[in-house]
Amino acid sequence: MVNQQPLDSLFHALADPTRRAVVHRLLTGAAPVKRLAEPFGIGLPAFLKHLAVLEGAGLIRSEKRGRVRTCHVNADRLGAAEHWLTEQRAIWQGRADRLADFVESQPDQEHRT
Amino acid sequence: MVNQQPLDSLFHALADPTRRAVVHRLLTGAAPVKRLAEPFGIGLPAFLKHLAVLEGAGLIRSEKRGRVRTCHVNADRLGAAEHWLTEQRAIWQGRADRLADFVESQPDQEHRT
Repeated sequence: MVNQQPLDSLFHALADPTRRAVVHRLLTGAAPVKRLAEPFGIGLPAFLKHLAVLEGAGLIRSEKRGRVRTCHVNADRLGAAEHWLTEQRAIWQGRADRLADFVESQPDQEHRT
Repeated sequence: MVNQQPLDSLFHALADPTRRAVVHRLLTGAAPVKRLAEPFGIGLPAFLKHLAVLEGAGLIRSEKRGRVRTCHVNADRLGAAEHWLTEQRAIWQGRADRLADFVESQPDQEHRT
């Protein structure tokens, strides 16, 4: 069986508006933690917890140079979540197509009952 | 500002392997709760909690006829999560394209330094 844990942590990380906004922001370019935190108006300790969840899910990574820690996004990880959703849509679409085939295969008079 | 709560509950609901498996199963067709629960080998109360989370996120709905409660998937809600991820990918892609344009716009000799 496929290890599901990466998808668990990925979807969990995305289940919070601050964390989604951080990912959204970092997609436009890397940023130092302090600048990244500014728009959110929450305390730095709470913000660092959000970053730790994102880093644990592999959605971001950070590096420290001197006294500045800079965050980068790992956009590939978003692709993993998108991939799962796309697979589910394919299953749904396949079912809808089979239903449509079935309806079309019925004699006309049965449509009108 | 857009109400973010629906995405919160949606990603939270997907952050569990049992709940993802229930969605996956229901995409192939509706199922009564008891039959749906069988493959998971967890107690019915725990399973019902998972269904409540999925129902709260709008990912499934259920209806009771006589003594049988049947679950259906709301595939459109998966589309909402997919839409958010697709938007993020577009931002990332736009950034990658701008970087490529910038690199291409540089004189050749600068590439070789």
